[in-house]
Amino acid sequence: MTAVSDELRANGRVIALVPTMGYFHRGHLSLFQVAKANADLLVVSIFVNPIQFGPAEDYRGYPRNVDGDRAMAQNAGVDYLFCPEADVMYPSGYSTYVEVTALQHLLCGAFRPHHFKGVATICLKLFNIVKPHVVVFGQKDAQQAVIIRRMIQDLNLDLEMIVAPTVREPDGLAASSRNEYLTSEEREEAVVLHKALEHARRLIESGERRYETVRGEIVALIQEKPLAELEYAEIVEADTLKKVDPLRGDILIAVACRFGKARLIDNIALKI
Amino acid sequence: MTAVSDELRANGRVIALVPTMGYFHRGHLSLFQVAKANADLLVVSIFVNPIQFGPAEDYRGYPRNVDGDRAMAQNAGVDYLFCPEADVMYPSGYSTYVEVTALQHLLCGAFRPHHFKGVATICLKLFNIVKPHVVVFGQKDAQQAVIIRRMIQDLNLDLEMIVAPTVREPDGLAASSRNEYLTSEEREEAVVLHKALEHARRLIESGERRYETVRGEIVALIQEKPLAELEYAEIVEADTLKKVDPLRGDILIAVACRFGKARLIDNIALKI
Repeated sequence: MTAVSDELRANGRVIALVPTMGYFHRGHLSLFQVAKANADLLVVSIFVNPIQFGPAEDYRGYPRNVDGDRAMAQNAGVDYLFCPEADVMYPSGYSTYVEVTALQHLLCGAFRPHHFKGVATICLKLFNIVKPHVVVFGQKDAQQAVIIRRMIQDLNLDLEMIVAPTVREPDGLAASSRNEYLTSEEREEAVVLHKALEHARRLIESGERRYETVRGEIVALIQEKPLAELEYAEIVEADTLKKVDPLRGDILIAVACRFGKARLIDNIALKI
Repeated sequence: MTAVSDELRANGRVIALVPTMGYFHRGHLSLFQVAKANADLLVVSIFVNPIQFGPAEDYRGYPRNVDGDRAMAQNAGVDYLFCPEADVMYPSGYSTYVEVTALQHLLCGAFRPHHFKGVATICLKLFNIVKPHVVVFGQKDAQQAVIIRRMIQDLNLDLEMIVAPTVREPDGLAASSRNEYLTSEEREEAVVLHKALEHARRLIESGERRYETVRGEIVALIQEKPLAELEYAEIVEADTLKKVDPLRGDILIAVACRFGKARLIDNIALKI
């Protein structure tokens, strides 16, 4: 992969990378489109990264479909699919990890203590192997995007990061490989995450600035659903991920909620 | 700096980087020579890296002499001196750190708990800014070299690492900016580190393979010196830095010892 990239770079071609865990859906396809619009060539990596899953999480069961992914990638105009094996990425004796200390234990990080260390580490490895000029991430994984942006800046990585909008199902549910886990009942209830976020948006647009009020209404809406197990609903500064009260500036409203086996996240970004 | 490197690379020039904390002595000059022999252009960075010093350590007092360094660099044929400021390398909000977990708390790391995290982080930043093909480190800082080599491998960095031999004063003391701190009495005693290591080498060459025996003789020789405060004397595997007993394979014999204000380190590498 590095040899391919070196040759492309030597020929002046602009390389985009979209790092993924595979099991492509419309969300991924949208990232590919954004990437292609900003580069000459698109590399997509598929790697279900073991070190970003906790011991009780769904690493083994995470949905995989490499053949289906390959077909979708070809249709989408992906130039290179990079699919390394776990024992090549983390050989015996592997010891190096990247941490973004101020951001990694907030929001999802409070529930997944080693998750973002694993995410930052694999992204840095993929950046070093693929040597892209441009990397594209999705807004759906908002905290991941903030952390990778911070890492790129802090480690002086010479690449541009683009965050592409969340792609949603017709009813508003954010596209996610983990939607696969939902029973039809859970699937029906899961749209509440989007509805609660949009309700919060309207509250704020109508002038509400009290953190507790907005957050309280999000929580109440989600908790009306019998199958929803809310992990968190937070309103934070978009770059520092710190709680903001009263609401002002660039903010992120983020939720994480379990429906049965599926842990779903969603968010909206607002400028007040 | 990155723009300069990009242009050099685009023109096919091979760039070497020697990262330093300045206050050049013969040890640095030897690294520069090795680097120049392996590249078209030599970049030397001077940066006294605050995050690799503990709160009670000598960050503020670390010897600095940028004018003298510049003159020596010019004489030595250094092409670029890169001297960033601390608040540029670590601006407000800085949060990203690299750890080499299996190696960073051994040997010196047991006495300097955040030191190698700071070293790995600044080296990665400098590599990303300067984009060298070749980096050169000194064997005197043996643990640093092992950690940086591991980081390069683990993070898939596309660069070659060369470790150059330790340069010594005529009596055998390893060249170090911190020798500056020694009083003449301490300076006289400090040569015991080299003598003890050479004694250990002879013991092993004459067939001794017992860890405790070899280590015991090193410790005894150093402790004969009234001004020596030994931190550790260890015999470890050269790549894992783990204690090796009985002695075999590629080993590193490493010592750290205080003489007054100066904390000095030295080592020898042996193949048994």
